Amino acid sequence: MENAMEKMILWFELHQLQEAYVHALDNDRLEEWPEFFVDDCLYEIIPRENADASLPIGIIYCDSKRMLRDRVLSLRHANIYEAHSYRHMTSGLMIKRIDADTVETESSYVVIQTLQDGESHVYQAGRYLDRVIRTGAGWRYAKRRVVYDTLRVQTLLATPI
Amino acid sequence: MENAMEKMILWFELHQLQEAYVHALDNDRLEEWPEFFVDDCLYEIIPRENADASLPIGIIYCDSKRMLRDRVLSLRHANIYEAHSYRHMTSGLMIKRIDADTVETESSYVVIQTLQDGESHVYQAGRYLDRVIRTGAGWRYAKRRVVYDTLRVQTLLATPI
Amino acid sequence: MENAMEKMILWFELHQLQEAYVHALDNDRLEEWPEFFVDDCLYEIIPRENADASLPIGIIYCDSKRMLRDRVLSLRHANIYEAHSYRHMTSGLMIKRIDADTVETESSYVVIQTLQDGESHVYQAGRYLDRVIRTGAGWRYAKRRVVYDTLRVQTLLATPI
Repeated sequence: MENAMEKMILWFELHQLQEAYVHALDNDRLEEWPEFFVDDCLYEIIPRENADASLPIGIIYCDSKRMLRDRVLSLRHANIYEAHSYRHMTSGLMIKRIDADTVETESSYVVIQTLQDGESHVYQAGRYLDRVIRTGAGWRYAKRRVVYDTLRVQTLLATPI
Repeated sequence: MENAMEKMILWFELHQLQEAYVHALDNDRLEEWPEFFVDDCLYEIIPRENADASLPIGIIYCDSKRMLRDRVLSLRHANIYEAHSYRHMTSGLMIKRIDADTVETESSYVVIQTLQDGESHVYQAGRYLDRVIRTGAGWRYAKRRVVYDTLRVQTLLATPI
Repeated sequence: MENAMEKMILWFELHQLQEAYVHALDNDRLEEWPEFFVDDCLYEIIPRENADASLPIGIIYCDSKRMLRDRVLSLRHANIYEAHSYRHMTSGLMIKRIDADTVETESSYVVIQTLQDGESHVYQAGRYLDRVIRTGAGWRYAKRRVVYDTLRVQTLLATPI
């Protein structure tokens, strides 16, 4: 039972990290978003067919926390984020590999967007492919690849997923 | 690890409460719905912009379990509930504050509605802001604020979320 | 606390089974799908109104693992599965009955489909009614009834849910 508990606690901690992350996005606390990553991180949003073909072209590519912060500034400046509201639903967090203080996980997400006319609809569905690292301040994302199923997505000033 | 386990068990218990609650609603066992609350409870459904502005006007406001029961009777009398089916998906249950036998939590929901023509679509997205109390009979909601993103919602004889 | 932990570990194991199951489907690893079942299993997809009336007619009915494998072969032969992508979101896994090494559970699902034009939408919503058995190789489904709310579903060469 010891082993089962350790596995469950690890799952729970990574689950809480994920939920805190989407809470920040859904409640328009964008400035907190980069803080879920280590300094030397990789964050990208790529379409499914590119991920399958290992093509690197996506709609967001940031390879440091500084680039994440720059993106938040751009979004705030463009004031485009507040026009809609988003709600992330996550499901199926699975631990794929554990290696000392590094864990690789995969999970599914669906983002519901509510436009100013008041209608809610499925904005984007996909999955997260993550490498998570245990730091002194808790778990942080070292790599977060967002692979979306949906093809018609907004590519100009895309919001974080 | 002791501490991590206690936190996880608390999360699990509140998660099970939430799931039992939505199971009752989704399976049309409306009469069970008031039983998830303490007698002296607050339940309301309010739009996001009102919540942000602290305006108290919503589409449901009940400040006792008796009012919740009255609403169930009204819905049964109007026979409006059975015309559709609902499916609640919840995600992101987070514990915000713990204080003796009272816990404050936040979570996200999406309700999928299936109309009589057979189509399923996103009916409403939003979040639950809860105060939960440990009673002799288990955890119960003392306060459940349902804050919806979606603006076009049915306001006449609204169903519980 | 001992008892609460055992319950939670059981929930977690069944939750992981569920997530591994939908991961296989969502990532087009259809061949793994029958392996989540015991040899002498029952898998069916039926509409809600039939389930309520105990009518046995559904869109898929398989009463052995061999039939599940045959279905995968048919789907691969027809090459119909790869034309779309699916994303299962699950929620509300509840344990209804525990009896030695057999557990009955219920949970909700929503399947998001992305068509080739790139749009994502709610394809199907419903619930799983499961009987799960502990085997030497881990938990496996002995019975999985998929009861869908949505009426307009593809009935010809239906994909597993």
